[in-house]
Amino acid sequence: MQGMMKAVVKQTAGPGFELVHIPIPQIGPHDILIRTRAASICGTDIHIYNWDVWAANRIKPPIIIGHEFCGDVVEIGSQVTEVQVGDFISAESHIVDHTCDLCRTGMAHICRNTQIIGVDRDGSFAEYVALPAANAWHNPPNMPPEIAALEENFGNAVHTALETPVVARKVLVTGCGPVGVMTIAVAKAAGARAIYASDISAYRLDLAKKMGADLTLNPQRDDLVKTILDDTNGDGVDVLLEMSGAPSAIRDGLRLLKAGGHAVMLGLPSKPFELDLANLVIMKGITVHGIAGRKLWETWYEIRGLLRSGAVNLEPVITHRFKLEEFQKAFETMMSGDSGKVVLFP
Amino acid sequence: MQGMMKAVVKQTAGPGFELVHIPIPQIGPHDILIRTRAASICGTDIHIYNWDVWAANRIKPPIIIGHEFCGDVVEIGSQVTEVQVGDFISAESHIVDHTCDLCRTGMAHICRNTQIIGVDRDGSFAEYVALPAANAWHNPPNMPPEIAALEENFGNAVHTALETPVVARKVLVTGCGPVGVMTIAVAKAAGARAIYASDISAYRLDLAKKMGADLTLNPQRDDLVKTILDDTNGDGVDVLLEMSGAPSAIRDGLRLLKAGGHAVMLGLPSKPFELDLANLVIMKGITVHGIAGRKLWETWYEIRGLLRSGAVNLEPVITHRFKLEEFQKAFETMMSGDSGKVVLFP
Amino acid sequence: MQGMMKAVVKQTAGPGFELVHIPIPQIGPHDILIRTRAASICGTDIHIYNWDVWAANRIKPPIIIGHEFCGDVVEIGSQVTEVQVGDFISAESHIVDHTCDLCRTGMAHICRNTQIIGVDRDGSFAEYVALPAANAWHNPPNMPPEIAALEENFGNAVHTALETPVVARKVLVTGCGPVGVMTIAVAKAAGARAIYASDISAYRLDLAKKMGADLTLNPQRDDLVKTILDDTNGDGVDVLLEMSGAPSAIRDGLRLLKAGGHAVMLGLPSKPFELDLANLVIMKGITVHGIAGRKLWETWYEIRGLLRSGAVNLEPVITHRFKLEEFQKAFETMMSGDSGKVVLFP
Amino acid sequence: MQGMMKAVVKQTAGPGFELVHIPIPQIGPHDILIRTRAASICGTDIHIYNWDVWAANRIKPPIIIGHEFCGDVVEIGSQVTEVQVGDFISAESHIVDHTCDLCRTGMAHICRNTQIIGVDRDGSFAEYVALPAANAWHNPPNMPPEIAALEENFGNAVHTALETPVVARKVLVTGCGPVGVMTIAVAKAAGARAIYASDISAYRLDLAKKMGADLTLNPQRDDLVKTILDDTNGDGVDVLLEMSGAPSAIRDGLRLLKAGGHAVMLGLPSKPFELDLANLVIMKGITVHGIAGRKLWETWYEIRGLLRSGAVNLEPVITHRFKLEEFQKAFETMMSGDSGKVVLFP
Repeated sequence: MQGMMKAVVKQTAGPGFELVHIPIPQIGPHDILIRTRAASICGTDIHIYNWDVWAANRIKPPIIIGHEFCGDVVEIGSQVTEVQVGDFISAESHIVDHTCDLCRTGMAHICRNTQIIGVDRDGSFAEYVALPAANAWHNPPNMPPEIAALEENFGNAVHTALETPVVARKVLVTGCGPVGVMTIAVAKAAGARAIYASDISAYRLDLAKKMGADLTLNPQRDDLVKTILDDTNGDGVDVLLEMSGAPSAIRDGLRLLKAGGHAVMLGLPSKPFELDLANLVIMKGITVHGIAGRKLWETWYEIRGLLRSGAVNLEPVITHRFKLEEFQKAFETMMSGDSGKVVLFP
Repeated sequence: MQGMMKAVVKQTAGPGFELVHIPIPQIGPHDILIRTRAASICGTDIHIYNWDVWAANRIKPPIIIGHEFCGDVVEIGSQVTEVQVGDFISAESHIVDHTCDLCRTGMAHICRNTQIIGVDRDGSFAEYVALPAANAWHNPPNMPPEIAALEENFGNAVHTALETPVVARKVLVTGCGPVGVMTIAVAKAAGARAIYASDISAYRLDLAKKMGADLTLNPQRDDLVKTILDDTNGDGVDVLLEMSGAPSAIRDGLRLLKAGGHAVMLGLPSKPFELDLANLVIMKGITVHGIAGRKLWETWYEIRGLLRSGAVNLEPVITHRFKLEEFQKAFETMMSGDSGKVVLFP
Repeated sequence: MQGMMKAVVKQTAGPGFELVHIPIPQIGPHDILIRTRAASICGTDIHIYNWDVWAANRIKPPIIIGHEFCGDVVEIGSQVTEVQVGDFISAESHIVDHTCDLCRTGMAHICRNTQIIGVDRDGSFAEYVALPAANAWHNPPNMPPEIAALEENFGNAVHTALETPVVARKVLVTGCGPVGVMTIAVAKAAGARAIYASDISAYRLDLAKKMGADLTLNPQRDDLVKTILDDTNGDGVDVLLEMSGAPSAIRDGLRLLKAGGHAVMLGLPSKPFELDLANLVIMKGITVHGIAGRKLWETWYEIRGLLRSGAVNLEPVITHRFKLEEFQKAFETMMSGDSGKVVLFP
Repeated sequence: MQGMMKAVVKQTAGPGFELVHIPIPQIGPHDILIRTRAASICGTDIHIYNWDVWAANRIKPPIIIGHEFCGDVVEIGSQVTEVQVGDFISAESHIVDHTCDLCRTGMAHICRNTQIIGVDRDGSFAEYVALPAANAWHNPPNMPPEIAALEENFGNAVHTALETPVVARKVLVTGCGPVGVMTIAVAKAAGARAIYASDISAYRLDLAKKMGADLTLNPQRDDLVKTILDDTNGDGVDVLLEMSGAPSAIRDGLRLLKAGGHAVMLGLPSKPFELDLANLVIMKGITVHGIAGRKLWETWYEIRGLLRSGAVNLEPVITHRFKLEEFQKAFETMMSGDSGKVVLFP
């Protein structure tokens, strides 16, 4: 397809983004072109906006930002068979090589040569996105665009919450950002007996309640360890779902975890930190699961199941909606901490 | 404790039971004596009542029948430490040896030397029951007795439904007797995407609906295979929970199971039958899980979690209540097929 | 590549094969052309040779037979990147669609649209074979061709033997054809405590011994159940690896399996048969694993590991070698029962 | 049994032990009395000997030291049925409560109320040991006493090596003390494709070779990370078995672990240390397994299987033998680093 489009772009090394007009991307034989309907903002986008150390090392401007989105297929490559023009799709944002040992053994989500859209190549804060057809996920035509845009990020929550059984078990979720509260919703849908949730933002704890947390705690105000031990007869919890990356949350979470329990970790600590591995993990016989991305495509089928049965309702997570042109205001809202998910509409 | 008590007893080899007055059982140093509050009727009890081939081979009269019950501890043996007089308990009905290789490796539920109360030794359709303290499960004082009595049987449902993940998956439950409908409730609580249920009794299908089935089917009236294939785009289901023991249900269930799926089987076929193992199991890469009893004590902790969170409500399963003296009417009700669980109160 | 080649072909519906001269196959953009170095005969090929009911329903003549082979890549399609001319490869014989739900969730070995070479499209008993590049498995240049040809079939053995842990456990292998004896070798390499093997052919039992069986039994001569129970203090075995498809072997194997044990089944019964599911599977808490093909590509990496470390030596399995032109003699040898693997060299 | 016996005792808070004459211990109704045949020295005993911070906090003198041993049963309590006078037994050193939630759900090895002999109550460096009968493990009469004494410690190796599959996989074992080299032997027996081993002692690396390591490396001399990456085409290893507790070994081991790999950790870091959890665990999708003790009794059955099949030979691990009276020399040998396992004979 020929023509120009609007896009939110990191133009040069440094903070901020710009709204620009650039050519619509051209597609190869195995690709599809998608007209974006909705695109949501991820924590990763904030890092890139702020141009922190990680972003400065990883991002090569100029690049279109954004990786959570949905849209309508408007063009397909000559070799594409499984996608058709008119399909309403969401996208797995990790473009994998399909040939490495990890891809070949069910671990494509940690492929040796992963490229992420909006990070390593042009992304979704734009009117059009080009993508390998193999990354498309079909949605029913009547799915609300903001929900469809959210599926990729919801996948992180599903991957985390379903990594180890939570049914009939007590669960602690540390970190109630958008992924955290979606994780709470999945744990609830999967039959958790009790869900404790912690965060330092009152706004987010309120959202955690709405999404299914039974008890919310602010570690700056409440004694997290004592409160949960008291509430569990001193036993602690069976499962820790760590979504914050905060060293204090990781330590408290592991302290609260029963011997033999499972710690599932998605939150990324910003740097190395001191951990008492002997007492918190080894002697307690704890299993720690590092979580990256979504399982291709097990997680996506689980997303479908949870949304279509109505077991999870993502509506409350989406707290703000903006036009693509208002991206500046959208990012400010997201960075205020007083938001759930913020969605852009091109 | 000295004195006499009422008990429902199989007095001689042959059909039927009798209500008799016999001495209260005496306990050993590791046992406890329980005053029965409620006791429910199981399918096994029907087999014993009817004196079928299995019962004639297994039961040695005279014996007090019944193995699902709850009550108050009124006496404890000299060596008992973990149970106290006044505790309100339910009982694991399988008395295991704790020393065989299976007991020592987490498989006590299939212990080589299992004795079942009401089958191999005196049971619970009586005012008092003697039991090893190690078989006691503590309940909160305010739990309704009919729910507490039901926990043992509910454990079969929990063991079956949680043997393989059902979250976000499509599930078929064949057989909607009391255990079947409780299995439906557990699958629902655990986040199943859709639950199909089949039985030949309209009464039971109605109960299945109440407990969480999304679509109920009567194979004598509906085309089970066609209906479910149509409803699943020809895919079939991810998990089969087989609770009927009927060869036709097993065959249809396996036919409807997706390649790579899991069949969890609790229902006992009454005799050997023809099965197309090559096409229904091997070439499809199916895993079949045989289920016996409840896991000691993993299942009981799951029971506790599911009941206390309110994720499962067992009230609708209990459809009839009788005095112990009305046992005859109770068994007739149970055998009519037009009942859920029938509970006796001594 | 242009030109003619020799090939063993099922020309018409009915028993037997013919050696014909036909054009070298042409390849598409994602395919590779391989010059066959060695090709081994599988039990499936015998079914096709004999034109049994299964073959008559499945095979559409004319078709080149054979699916176990290795060779040198002599031509690659325009889109192929992961294979180069000169590579020495073996082939996964199952051509899968890569797009169905099973392929997308780690179960490509039971893909809904599997095509098998030598069964559903032209196979490997020929001088040249055309294949999707995605089906190629790279071998080291110095691997003996008859071993490389055998990898695909060895994969069935690896898939079966490693489906459930055998380390330090007692294992019974029923059926000592080529896949059976390779399964014995894998179980041995994986640390099985004791391997019992049964077959009705003395030749094959001898081969089983060579590949690592500790005790071999002929059920037509020995009391299989009694001998193994006596040798295990009445306990039986922890794992059954069923490679025969014989109903009597399946029944005896399940009888000998400990409660809580695992039955892994690859052998295909030729038709439905009577099975006492209640006593042999359900009440014993047995898990039955149906096995089809090889896991793509987990099994292949395991094949590589077992062969390169020397943990498994496949040499003794290869008992006969023939030129492609001698296919008639090769099939007769295979059908005599007095052989291990028979390899053809074009 | 009445009379006096020799015992090695921590008499007062502070370094060192003493050989004393004290009364033979008296047994309760569920206990057995064992005449010690052999007792081996563990790293834990060294901590107690040296009276380090951990020991000073945990040990309450006076106490008989030692927890790895075997011997003959000379007396049984009135309630004991599963052990008889004359039995030759080894002992599980963890005395658990059998009633807590962990004991009741297959995790007795991390029981909330574990008491360890030689740490929390009198141990095995003595002529007689009293023990609950439930802690006895039966050995064949002809098993060499030094092997039987070693089984408990070998259990740590078995628990670690079999926590995740190693068959056909590349394994790195960091730390080649006695447990480390036994772990190597188990990984070898279980079919590991390649075993890399690291330690800073030449003596121990030599022992590692003898027990099955394919390549041994001294991180003070060799570039561990580079060497192993070079040897694995840059891939690294599939499984890390961490037996040293050294922060540098943990960091290098995790660096060398493939994405999606498993780190099994038994070595105890002496204090908290800095770890880059984001890059070494979370983003790589690593699973970390903390290992404490031995599984009761799964591990013991695996011990039996590995020793009886001959898959593991522990003889080379036992490098020194002393009389109980020579305990001082024995401990000096053990602390020199130039030893495998040191065994005492009362």
